[in-house]
Amino acid sequence: MSSPSAPQDSYPYQNEPTWSKSEKAIARAVFDAALKRELQDVMQETKQTANQIKEPADVWELEHYLTERRKEINHKYDYRYSQLTHVFGKLLYEGRISEEDLNGLRDDKLKSIRSLAKFLAEDTAA
Amino acid sequence: MSSPSAPQDSYPYQNEPTWSKSEKAIARAVFDAALKRELQDVMQETKQTANQIKEPADVWELEHYLTERRKEINHKYDYRYSQLTHVFGKLLYEGRISEEDLNGLRDDKLKSIRSLAKFLAEDTAA
Repeated sequence: MSSPSAPQDSYPYQNEPTWSKSEKAIARAVFDAALKRELQDVMQETKQTANQIKEPADVWELEHYLTERRKEINHKYDYRYSQLTHVFGKLLYEGRISEEDLNGLRDDKLKSIRSLAKFLAEDTAA
Repeated sequence: MSSPSAPQDSYPYQNEPTWSKSEKAIARAVFDAALKRELQDVMQETKQTANQIKEPADVWELEHYLTERRKEINHKYDYRYSQLTHVFGKLLYEGRISEEDLNGLRDDKLKSIRSLAKFLAEDTAA
């Protein structure tokens, strides 16, 4: 019996890595710390940008910046186990987390994470 | 012959006041000065609000505030001669312009402007 309300990560799709209890604890901590840092960055950038406002257009530019950052952050920080290697791959590529942060994850996940980070780096360089 | 691209204010609707050249000059100056003051207010409020940001929620509150202010200002400052008595009525009600600013407008317009300002004040008090 399957329930439509069952969370996705309880019934991993074929080929998706399963996450052990200790891996989940690591993932949660890394995810939360990265999100916290990114939000701190937005707070800092908002204060700096606001302080430099000189004309009305600067205000609407700040509004646009905030809207884009909110959408980007909402999209990027997707804590579903089916998405986590992508999330960490992107954060690794952006330099928002380091490989050391991921110590304790199994090789199958580290491989996926590094692979996406490398792909994104090459994609940008191209 | 009417053209779909003819500006509305060149062909005033029935019962709409016409604006003399000197009235148009007064209207433009009052309108521009009020808009400039309101945009200065937004700039000031944005800087103050940004300086008081303490947590991420404050950032998204600022974004929301800016979006609402932008929509409100775009809607309020409608420089069509068919709308100007409404625009000035609202600005008078909000205390953003004074009756003295409107010196030089004909009585038909002053009456409409005061009437709307009074209506809005009573509407709010109700």
